[in-house]
Amino acid sequence: MSASTLVSTALHTDRYELTMLGAALRDGTAARRCVFELFGRRLPGGRRFGVVAGTGRLLTLLREFRFGDDELRYLKDQKVVDAATLTYLENYRFTGSIVGYREGEVYFPGSPIMTVEGTFAEAVVLETLALSVLNHDSAIATAAARMSIAAGDRPLAEMGSRRAGEESAVAAARAAYIAGFAATSNLEAGRRWGVPTMGTAAHAWTLLHDSEEDAFRSQIDALGAGTTLLVDTYDIRQGVETAVRVAGTSLGGVRIDSGDLPTVAASVRAQLDDLGATKTKITVTSDLDEFAIASLAASPIDSYGVGTSLVTGSGTPTAGMVYKLVARQDSTGAWVSVAKASTDKGSKGGRKAAFRSLRDGTATHELVSVSDGFEQLSAAAQHPEARALQIPFVTSGDFDSSAEGSTGVESARSHHAFVRDELPVRSLALSRSDPAIPTVYVDATEQRAT
Amino acid sequence: MSASTLVSTALHTDRYELTMLGAALRDGTAARRCVFELFGRRLPGGRRFGVVAGTGRLLTLLREFRFGDDELRYLKDQKVVDAATLTYLENYRFTGSIVGYREGEVYFPGSPIMTVEGTFAEAVVLETLALSVLNHDSAIATAAARMSIAAGDRPLAEMGSRRAGEESAVAAARAAYIAGFAATSNLEAGRRWGVPTMGTAAHAWTLLHDSEEDAFRSQIDALGAGTTLLVDTYDIRQGVETAVRVAGTSLGGVRIDSGDLPTVAASVRAQLDDLGATKTKITVTSDLDEFAIASLAASPIDSYGVGTSLVTGSGTPTAGMVYKLVARQDSTGAWVSVAKASTDKGSKGGRKAAFRSLRDGTATHELVSVSDGFEQLSAAAQHPEARALQIPFVTSGDFDSSAEGSTGVESARSHHAFVRDELPVRSLALSRSDPAIPTVYVDATEQRAT
Repeated sequence: MSASTLVSTALHTDRYELTMLGAALRDGTAARRCVFELFGRRLPGGRRFGVVAGTGRLLTLLREFRFGDDELRYLKDQKVVDAATLTYLENYRFTGSIVGYREGEVYFPGSPIMTVEGTFAEAVVLETLALSVLNHDSAIATAAARMSIAAGDRPLAEMGSRRAGEESAVAAARAAYIAGFAATSNLEAGRRWGVPTMGTAAHAWTLLHDSEEDAFRSQIDALGAGTTLLVDTYDIRQGVETAVRVAGTSLGGVRIDSGDLPTVAASVRAQLDDLGATKTKITVTSDLDEFAIASLAASPIDSYGVGTSLVTGSGTPTAGMVYKLVARQDSTGAWVSVAKASTDKGSKGGRKAAFRSLRDGTATHELVSVSDGFEQLSAAAQHPEARALQIPFVTSGDFDSSAEGSTGVESARSHHAFVRDELPVRSLALSRSDPAIPTVYVDATEQRAT
Repeated sequence: MSASTLVSTALHTDRYELTMLGAALRDGTAARRCVFELFGRRLPGGRRFGVVAGTGRLLTLLREFRFGDDELRYLKDQKVVDAATLTYLENYRFTGSIVGYREGEVYFPGSPIMTVEGTFAEAVVLETLALSVLNHDSAIATAAARMSIAAGDRPLAEMGSRRAGEESAVAAARAAYIAGFAATSNLEAGRRWGVPTMGTAAHAWTLLHDSEEDAFRSQIDALGAGTTLLVDTYDIRQGVETAVRVAGTSLGGVRIDSGDLPTVAASVRAQLDDLGATKTKITVTSDLDEFAIASLAASPIDSYGVGTSLVTGSGTPTAGMVYKLVARQDSTGAWVSVAKASTDKGSKGGRKAAFRSLRDGTATHELVSVSDGFEQLSAAAQHPEARALQIPFVTSGDFDSSAEGSTGVESARSHHAFVRDELPVRSLALSRSDPAIPTVYVDATEQRAT
């Protein structure tokens, strides 16, 4: 891991996690073994499916989840916790286990995306960081997947860094790549996660020079005729004419960042062809979202750049997942399923195992097997026709690093392409509707009994 | 500055900034002096005003904007730039000047929120980072200000960390505090920026225990009767009864996180009063935004906690500001105003000076004086009835640190309260409309001539 990520993330935590920890250390419940489950109650925005992203990034952060001197001093000075809690935090190491959906997997309401098992003390303090990472990255990946569906075979570039917090921008570039984007403008995403980067010039480049021709000539001198010239700083028709005159018919591409894109793209294509630049590509980058991309399917466009709508989740900037205690041991060591009962936010207690039921290779159900006990994963044997969705990430404190780094990103990207192919055709629609497949709960205890 | 912010932000940059830099170093335009202006073309979401936030955070990051070994190695390995550009970046130090709106200031369409003057080379590479920080933080602060208006004298707590990327969450807590929130749940925002933190317990606390009564008793043992108990895990009426029975009538507060809040708050208040807990406060935290807060004005509620809607900018997750070249020197050293001309994204060229015109202490106009030249700020003398809005942040490479750290945050918070008081009453409405005051451009050159 590089220096730039060696930062303590331990205080990226809601104060109440540590307040509860302190009280639990006093009353002895801190040592009770617990199962926390991270899931989404619904798919926000009427989406057909969600995309899990952030898992590898989260595991990298959890591995370094430590309370250092700066963090402990702050907690002590502000009297956030008592001395016993400070001592606990100073020695904090996660010794529990985490299983969950592979990064890039699709998910549905109630899918147990991540399950954390450990003592109450070690598991409760991870809530805020786990949700921050998965809620953000999954929201972006879900939007990106829809854009990728709308774009079909045409490549998409992520260019929204300037419209997101500077670290969320890096995470967004990573999530978009996992969900099918081809590249990003964000160099840190390239350095940190191996995402391919792209970009040539902005309007400032043309404005810096005494003429558009000077700007184009200089760019071609520096980057070769295969570069992409931005042609809409002044008059687009004149810009295209100048571009081909300066670069020749081997000009790599032109970028259009304004105007009514179907009209402009058609006219630029015709002009390029008239000038003999028949292989010069057209990329468009003006306020695109999945709907705009879909509406350009018949236009002569070779690639898309997407900014604001991608990094803001195209109307759904957070996936809205929660992290809930679903089972715990009681004072005798017996497991008890638990869930909040009141009114509008009921959750389903009990440990879950999840499978995607398939018929002829197409997903039909999200099958969630619920138990109150410990031996949940044995239920997998009972669903041989379904694909088991959970894999181990951390086993008794040992992190499996295969989900991390750029290896993890490439693996997640491949996995996403694979699982998206399993979805029924109705999943591809952009309109608001119900989830593409239903979530079906089965009682593992009853199953074993029958 | 603490260890956790000593991270290179130099690659939080779109690739095209460095591509342009490389080409400009080749053709000599890298040394041309330029003025870049950061501004919003409009107030997104039909808001009446925007709130500038992120300035102090950005200055902290810009001061450390350096290309280290890791960054340079990546750029070299990936052939992003040539050897001459790598050498330039290795020695990069910003030697230009930055002026802008004070953090916490309100802004309108066209307000020159930040003006960066320097060589093209040193100024162009700051675009992405500057926009990332100011677009995110200002979007949050603008939403927070509306919530603060809706809440009136009742305190607001920011609790949305789990619904935002982990670093954006810290920035959101900071921005919300500047715009009038009283506290945050985010401990890192407390440690890094001095924002007051709050929080007691989640539903998991009650579920961890064998009974709600056990949970309440333990919390009171640890935190005293002045704590706030979360009463809606099971049955709210029973929860309130148990809370007062365990804590006594000196119970500090109860928190309600579900249900129809006007109904529930009224019934909980009546129950608390009946039980003699007349001073026990009620805080509510269930999916609030500025409209929900406004609708609760007549309910017996003492404070609000806001999560998702705050950190996502309540429908406007980015402020949509841009960073545009507005003036540059030509090859003779003369200044030239520049602006993109094409179709739908026209910007106003020229250096700007900005003033808030006031009448009887109430803002009437955003007055923006435009010049093509260098001596812009002298125009201030021509508007003695108006408040000058720009202050120096960096002068010839020297950073004024007064806007940074927790001192900067407190100062921004005070400044925001001051300037919000200057706004006309129509600014306080939550409905979509035009900006509360118009932006009026005047030609500084003509003014001086008359």
